[in-house]
Amino acid sequence: MVGSQPLSTWNEGAPKSAILDFVARVTTQGGAEFVPPAERIATFDNDGTLCSEQPLQTQFFFLFDRVKELSARDPAMSGRQPFKAVLDHDYNALFGLGRQALFELALATHAGVTDEDFDQIARGWLATARNPKLGRLFRESVYRPQVELLAYLRENGFKTYIVSASGVDFLRAFANEAYGVSREQVIGSSVKLRYDVGGDRISLMKLPELNSFNDREAKPLNISLHIGRRPRLVFGNSDGDLAMMRYAKSGSGERLALLLHHDDAEREAAYDREFRISPLAEALDKAEDYGITVVSMKRDWKVVF
Amino acid sequence: MVGSQPLSTWNEGAPKSAILDFVARVTTQGGAEFVPPAERIATFDNDGTLCSEQPLQTQFFFLFDRVKELSARDPAMSGRQPFKAVLDHDYNALFGLGRQALFELALATHAGVTDEDFDQIARGWLATARNPKLGRLFRESVYRPQVELLAYLRENGFKTYIVSASGVDFLRAFANEAYGVSREQVIGSSVKLRYDVGGDRISLMKLPELNSFNDREAKPLNISLHIGRRPRLVFGNSDGDLAMMRYAKSGSGERLALLLHHDDAEREAAYDREFRISPLAEALDKAEDYGITVVSMKRDWKVVF
Repeated sequence: MVGSQPLSTWNEGAPKSAILDFVARVTTQGGAEFVPPAERIATFDNDGTLCSEQPLQTQFFFLFDRVKELSARDPAMSGRQPFKAVLDHDYNALFGLGRQALFELALATHAGVTDEDFDQIARGWLATARNPKLGRLFRESVYRPQVELLAYLRENGFKTYIVSASGVDFLRAFANEAYGVSREQVIGSSVKLRYDVGGDRISLMKLPELNSFNDREAKPLNISLHIGRRPRLVFGNSDGDLAMMRYAKSGSGERLALLLHHDDAEREAAYDREFRISPLAEALDKAEDYGITVVSMKRDWKVVF
Repeated sequence: MVGSQPLSTWNEGAPKSAILDFVARVTTQGGAEFVPPAERIATFDNDGTLCSEQPLQTQFFFLFDRVKELSARDPAMSGRQPFKAVLDHDYNALFGLGRQALFELALATHAGVTDEDFDQIARGWLATARNPKLGRLFRESVYRPQVELLAYLRENGFKTYIVSASGVDFLRAFANEAYGVSREQVIGSSVKLRYDVGGDRISLMKLPELNSFNDREAKPLNISLHIGRRPRLVFGNSDGDLAMMRYAKSGSGERLALLLHHDDAEREAAYDREFRISPLAEALDKAEDYGITVVSMKRDWKVVF
């Protein structure tokens, strides 16, 4: 990047200026808004913020493939919901079963293996699985302007975190390669673990029991637990990110909250309030009240992938 | 430190050699045991490992002072256990009440304030509170050889974490100043938080409900949750650290587990299995079996404070 202009994949406009101005202010030594490097924390949602979540978030496709694999070994699974709906590719039925069924699905497909074995399973899947809408590998269905922004923030002394409702172990299987975000800077949903001793070998077994569903209000709570600081910059794309945006914005000093609006049917997708998995409504309606900068994919990004 | 020998506060001997050899092996590019920087994770217990825990762990003195303060505002507290025992300075009675009473004490003194207000309260207390045995500020009752070791590991590309049963917000109030460990690299016990909206201001309220008691088997579980990697180096001083030592040691490749033995009545304290808060017995008896390197404070440290 040396010699090139920062955020070259972003079009000129209010959001790009807001980011550049914000970074200049908080990094200007002796300036009124200077923020010491230790306090430069940036948190990004993942699905729909850093990568495409259409037609569904990446982890759903992983779940579906895990159900196929697990049901091949346990035929009784095939007749039971929510597994049946998955095997029938009946997503209307699946999402009609409600939130609890989706949790059951997530827990069943993420438990019964160690954290380290799960990492291998997820990496194996990510090596070849493709987004059906985009036709590209999921792990490459990431937004180039965001990858550039993350790198730009790190060059300016920020620690960049992912704070996502997707499973933490799943996210960690690609966050470094896709975004340059290391494993310890990923905060996600999690199941409980069990400490297992097998001879000399200690392993941690993933249990079918929720530890934390990292969405909405849980995002700031987990940020406090894991980081212990209010973020200076937050980037999200749905109402699930509003709590962490407001949390950041109500801290003292300079703070920037950015909201990606998917309004680009041609290059990616156009959706907001009607997306049933993770709608965007309140955050969009209240963006001005809450001091949130709305980023238009269509207008503000020179490229998408 | 430039120009000086590493670990100058450590005496020559097997533990110092084990540390220097380990660091040389994992950082030698092209060597068989080379470990990429991203995987260089070191986890240290706090009380008794990085700072003195005699006559009691620092946080107990903080708790006692909080009880005095809170009971002045709520006189009914004074007549009830476990608060009465604290106000009577009857520590035999207090510890005789058992584990549940100690939890109740911890929860009562850590809840009802936001995480940020708690940070201010803890910093205020740490500014003047002194260890009664040593006569020095608690925040300065830290072991110089360990502070040097932490810095040495960081100079060699390690991320240094504290993984302690003490409260995470309490530890964060001094970890950076005392050890150079930043807030996000502190993993401790925690209470649940509540997302509160007051006008435009979002705050996170600490609730009198346990989220995680970060001791024994919980240490590796929380290491997986927060860091997502088995540590390469672990340093502890009690049976409460054994699970994370064994977890680290049973990973592949080079790993080092170190156990501080308090055998120095003259310069600090001599104790192990009889310390009721956090005894050292199994880890000492099984050190050889588990490949743990025992560090003698008396023999291996040139200075203590």
